[in-house]
Amino acid sequence: MRGVIMDAPGRISVGDREEPRIVEPTDAVIRLVATCICGSDLWPYRGVEPVDHAAMGHEYVGIVEETGAAVKTVKPGDFVVGSFVISCGECPICRDGYQSKCVNYAFVGATIGTQAERARIPLADGTLVATPGMPDPDLIPSLLAASDVLGTGWYAADAAQVGAGKTVAVVGDGAVGLMGILAAGQMGAERIIAMSRYPERQALAREYGATDIVEERGKEGIAKIKELTDGLGAHSVIEAVGTQESFAQAIGATRPGGHVGFVGVAHKGVTLPMDKLFFAEIHLHGGPAPVRRYLPDLIDRIWKRQIDPGKVFDLTLPLERAAEGYAAMDQRRATKVLLTLDGERRAD
Amino acid sequence: MRGVIMDAPGRISVGDREEPRIVEPTDAVIRLVATCICGSDLWPYRGVEPVDHAAMGHEYVGIVEETGAAVKTVKPGDFVVGSFVISCGECPICRDGYQSKCVNYAFVGATIGTQAERARIPLADGTLVATPGMPDPDLIPSLLAASDVLGTGWYAADAAQVGAGKTVAVVGDGAVGLMGILAAGQMGAERIIAMSRYPERQALAREYGATDIVEERGKEGIAKIKELTDGLGAHSVIEAVGTQESFAQAIGATRPGGHVGFVGVAHKGVTLPMDKLFFAEIHLHGGPAPVRRYLPDLIDRIWKRQIDPGKVFDLTLPLERAAEGYAAMDQRRATKVLLTLDGERRAD
Repeated sequence: MRGVIMDAPGRISVGDREEPRIVEPTDAVIRLVATCICGSDLWPYRGVEPVDHAAMGHEYVGIVEETGAAVKTVKPGDFVVGSFVISCGECPICRDGYQSKCVNYAFVGATIGTQAERARIPLADGTLVATPGMPDPDLIPSLLAASDVLGTGWYAADAAQVGAGKTVAVVGDGAVGLMGILAAGQMGAERIIAMSRYPERQALAREYGATDIVEERGKEGIAKIKELTDGLGAHSVIEAVGTQESFAQAIGATRPGGHVGFVGVAHKGVTLPMDKLFFAEIHLHGGPAPVRRYLPDLIDRIWKRQIDPGKVFDLTLPLERAAEGYAAMDQRRATKVLLTLDGERRAD
Repeated sequence: MRGVIMDAPGRISVGDREEPRIVEPTDAVIRLVATCICGSDLWPYRGVEPVDHAAMGHEYVGIVEETGAAVKTVKPGDFVVGSFVISCGECPICRDGYQSKCVNYAFVGATIGTQAERARIPLADGTLVATPGMPDPDLIPSLLAASDVLGTGWYAADAAQVGAGKTVAVVGDGAVGLMGILAAGQMGAERIIAMSRYPERQALAREYGATDIVEERGKEGIAKIKELTDGLGAHSVIEAVGTQESFAQAIGATRPGGHVGFVGVAHKGVTLPMDKLFFAEIHLHGGPAPVRRYLPDLIDRIWKRQIDPGKVFDLTLPLERAAEGYAAMDQRRATKVLLTLDGERRAD
C-alpha cells in the first residue's frame, strides 16, 4: 500500500509500505478515508527530533475492513474515528479516563503511521469509536479533527477547568489552540482571550468563540491578560505550544487558584522554575490528551452539527502530495493540512 | 517587648523589639500565648537564604489585647489562631479560598515576626479566627499547629485530592509531612504510605494514620510505591520537602490522572523537567497554604478533640531559650519546637 515516509528531516516521500493485516485477535484493519499532518510531525521535519525513514501520521478516520476474533464494538463496514494513542479501555488507568497512559498504550505515530491507505489498529475496542452511520462528506474533516486536535483542545479546556462564567486565555493559535477556543465556548466560558498574532487565525478564533485577542507575548502578554481581568489573571489558561516561553506565559496569566491545562508537547530541556510555580499557586494538569475519553461526545456534537472543528483544515491535498502539505505547514502557509485517500477530495 | 532576632546565619538572640501598636483601623494587637520554630526558619539559619538581624516567626496563637475601629470578628480577650499569611478576606482571590495569595497579602514572617511577646496583626478579620472560648492548656499546641503546619499539611492533602478509597503517598516526614498524614486519615484515605527513615517519625506517622512505611528514596522509593500499588502509583501524593529530588520522587510516585499536592517551599534553582511532567499526565497543585480557609474547620476538630496535631511538637522551650530550639531542629534532635510565653510551660 502507499504511505508517507519521512526519509530524513525535510524530506517527505510517498512510497510502498507493508500491507497491514490482523495480527492479534483484538486488532482491526481500517481503510483510511482521511488523515492529516500534525504540528508535532514538524519536529522531526525541522530536525528538532531525529528521524530516519519513519512511517508518519497518527490522526485518522476510516472504514473497518477486517477485525480480529475478539473485537466486539466495531465491525467491517463501520466508519470509525480513533485516538492517536492505542488503549485497552479496561485497565484502571483507562477506567479513570486516562487512556493516553493506558498500561498497554502505544503511540500511533511511533508504531503505525496513519498517513497511508490502510492501518492496523491494535486494541480496536479500546481505541476506535464507530460513528452512527456513514458520515456526509462534509463531516469528515470534523471527525478527523476529533482524532487528535479537537480531542486535545477539548482535554486542555477540561484540564483547565473551563466552565460557565469563567475567563479563559489560550496561549497558542495553532490548530490545538483554536480547538481549545472552540471547546471553551462549548463549555460555557464567559470570556475567551486568544493570544494570536496572525490575522487569519484571529478570525477563526473569533468564529470559534474568542471574545478578545491579545497580540502581545511574554511579559507584555501577561500584563495584557491581567489588564483584562481586574489585575487577577484568567481563571483558566490553555497552553498549546510547549516551549519555555509559552509555559511562563501561561502560568503568569493565571490567577491564584486558577487552572492551566497544558497540551503543547514539551521538549527535553524545557524546565519549569519551581519557586515561580510555588508562589503562583495555580493548578497544572496536562499531557498527551486521552482523546478516547471524549470521542463519543465529540462525535455526537459533530454528528448533530453543533460544532464545526473541520474548519481548522485550511489546505486539503491527496496523500500522494503529502510533501507539499508538510512544506506548507512548515512555512506557516497552512494551519493544518488534510490528506485525502478517497480520490474525491482534491487539492484547492 | 522581647522577641527573637536572627542576627546572622546560625546566630539567634532574644532581645528587645519595638512594642506593637494599632496603626490601621483593621489591625489587632495580640499577646502571644505560644509560638514556634518552622522548618523554613532553618533556611536563613543555615545560610541558604540571606539574613541580617531579622525578627523571626510566623506561627502564633494568642489573646487579643486591642483592636482597630474597623475590626468586627475578634475583640479584646478573644483567644485567636492566625494564618502565617495576612489576608483581607474580601478580594476575589480570598473569596475563592486562596487567602495566601490575597491581593493585599503579606507574609507574617517577613513583616511581623511572631516569636515575640506581642504582635500587630493587620487585616485582623481576614487573618485571625477566634476559638469558641479559652482553650484548655493541653489544646494550645494543637491550635498553634493549625497556624501553619497543620493547615499546610491539610492543604497539601486537599490539593492532592485525597479522599475515600484512595492510596496516598507522603514525601517528607517533617512536621508538614506528618500533618499531611493526619489530614489524609481524616479525609478517609484507604492507604497512607509514609516515606520516612527516622524511627520516631515513623512511629508518629503510624499514630496519625500511616498504613505503610517506605524507607527507600529516589528511584528505589518510586519503585517501592509502584510495587505497593499494582504498578500504577498512588492516587494522591503529598510533596512536603521542596527539593529537586523530592519533586521527582513525588511525580514519579503518582499514577496517571493522579494528583500531587506540593507544599515544600521550592528554592530558586529547583526546576521541573516539563517533558517528564508532560508524559506523567498528573495534576499538580500547591504553594503557600491558604491556612485561613481551613482554620474554622481545623479549630472545630481540635476543640472536639478529634485530632491531636500538637504531638508534632517534641520540644518545648520558653521564648528566651529560642536559640536552643533552633539548634535542636537544625541538628534534627527535634521535629518541631514550641516556644512558650506564659511562664507556665517549660522545657522538657
